[in-house]
Amino acid sequence: MSSQEKLEQSLRRATGDANPSLTNAVIPALLRGIARTAVALRKAHSVDTAGSENAFGDTQLNVDVLADEFFRDELAACPAVVAASSEEDPVEIDMSTSSEDMDDVYAVAFDPLDGSSIIGPNWSVGSILGVWEGWSVLRQDPGKQVAAVLGVFGPRTTAVIAVRIPGREGDAVCVEVGLADDGSCEIIRSDVRLDAEGTIKTRYFAPANLRSAAEDERYMGLVTRYIAERYTLRYSGGLVPDVVHTLVKGHGVYLSPVTAGSKAKLRRAFELLPVALIVECAGGMAIDPASGRRILETPLENLDEKAGLVCGTAGEVEKVEIALLG
Amino acid sequence: MSSQEKLEQSLRRATGDANPSLTNAVIPALLRGIARTAVALRKAHSVDTAGSENAFGDTQLNVDVLADEFFRDELAACPAVVAASSEEDPVEIDMSTSSEDMDDVYAVAFDPLDGSSIIGPNWSVGSILGVWEGWSVLRQDPGKQVAAVLGVFGPRTTAVIAVRIPGREGDAVCVEVGLADDGSCEIIRSDVRLDAEGTIKTRYFAPANLRSAAEDERYMGLVTRYIAERYTLRYSGGLVPDVVHTLVKGHGVYLSPVTAGSKAKLRRAFELLPVALIVECAGGMAIDPASGRRILETPLENLDEKAGLVCGTAGEVEKVEIALLG
Repeated sequence: MSSQEKLEQSLRRATGDANPSLTNAVIPALLRGIARTAVALRKAHSVDTAGSENAFGDTQLNVDVLADEFFRDELAACPAVVAASSEEDPVEIDMSTSSEDMDDVYAVAFDPLDGSSIIGPNWSVGSILGVWEGWSVLRQDPGKQVAAVLGVFGPRTTAVIAVRIPGREGDAVCVEVGLADDGSCEIIRSDVRLDAEGTIKTRYFAPANLRSAAEDERYMGLVTRYIAERYTLRYSGGLVPDVVHTLVKGHGVYLSPVTAGSKAKLRRAFELLPVALIVECAGGMAIDPASGRRILETPLENLDEKAGLVCGTAGEVEKVEIALLG
Repeated sequence: MSSQEKLEQSLRRATGDANPSLTNAVIPALLRGIARTAVALRKAHSVDTAGSENAFGDTQLNVDVLADEFFRDELAACPAVVAASSEEDPVEIDMSTSSEDMDDVYAVAFDPLDGSSIIGPNWSVGSILGVWEGWSVLRQDPGKQVAAVLGVFGPRTTAVIAVRIPGREGDAVCVEVGLADDGSCEIIRSDVRLDAEGTIKTRYFAPANLRSAAEDERYMGLVTRYIAERYTLRYSGGLVPDVVHTLVKGHGVYLSPVTAGSKAKLRRAFELLPVALIVECAGGMAIDPASGRRILETPLENLDEKAGLVCGTAGEVEKVEIALLG
């Protein structure tokens, strides 16, 4: 059995035969997009700004634009994908030319290259991709988000893939794969799982948006408590590597609270919902620190919605919720 | 002029014709070692432990062993290199078979692959290499350390190279290059320089060994001050990516203090001296936080010496010195 077949078999633990196009077409297309982005990044020693800003006002790097094209190209070649939107071009585009007679169709929302501030120093960065069952990512039952992929561009090219099917959340699967340049893959971890029993000795924390702790004594209190309790700090400032660190180590908590002077900046469609799906499928929790509600339980109304994030090991997220919301 | 020739020309701003083998043989050999290590890492999705521990008790990963072999192989093919030692095998080995009639000979000390704890999650890691004029790295006038290279394995393969010649420290050069898989390179930044005037708005801090702040109120005070003064946190836990972040951004301070309960763990030969040379050649400072003395001013007596480190933008290092040593 090829590595590709092993991955499909692994993902079918969650999907059975319910969503064949998801495992045999959509996810392979996303993995090819990640592999192509990795190859382009590897050669992009002159990371010039493309001279344009994206719809959210970020300066676009030329590799961002390339990555966006790779994913759109791969998705366009995938008949089961009927809609796509990305952080670079946050309008949902209808791609349903030949899909009308398919049993399962999907809408994809993605951030092709997250972490532009750390591309210069050559730190690991990533792609974030979410897959919804149906014709749009908007105004859906939250359960319709059926898969998410985080691509990691580092010394290697790796991806964490989570799949679940509406009504069968207990069968959710989370897998880590290593990718070759042609998009073929090998399974590194067949069951990515956050430790629930507290058996892992080293405990990690990743405090994003730390400057906001200057004006938020509850956040400052949390950080000093992590230090006093000898948690290990790992914070790259890239959402994908920071979350994947937690998943691979089996323990960790990522915090990006929102304060009066420091607004929410993570996009729900392109960042929060895919990350939350991955973390929950690995047995963790992902909540909105403003409300304490699960990120996944609120349907997406607009592509430009933003929020904060606390995610990781369930017990750690619960402690943060108590500390921040009282 | 080829990229390789451009690099040589750039490094000769510091060396003139004083050390021809350094720029046309030793540094290219080190860059080839970095390129070979990058290629091996890219394929090493199963990072198995090799089952052995190195001389300092760290668990060796198989990629560490491979990287060590690549560098030793490249150095053995370089007649100007007469001695080599590494963190994986910290004994200085005489390699002077055919070098007796050369004008300039060199001893090299290196850490082939630093950052083993973050290889699993696919974060950027690095190589650290120092070059001394003469027959040994031990018991030399500190000025005899003439070059250092930091290799960064991330989405790309990059290296920061610093060169200086005894008596001509004012001509020191620090260059960042991008590497292809065959070891050929292109210059990314011809003058890597830490901002001395405070013109860079975003200020970065990287607090290593943060757990020790639990027992060291001066360190805890420093960290809370960085937060209150809205410095940006970037801390990967890999010495190379953390220091290179500072160099590429033009601002930053890396802190690894030593406390009663948290002993020094950075090796002077394989980590501190090469890093300190790079930081000084970029216009920054690198001090021992226990004494406040420059890392570079103390000769190396043994390959197993260890110490703490504070390095980065000169003004920031001076502030840390006052805060920690009073």
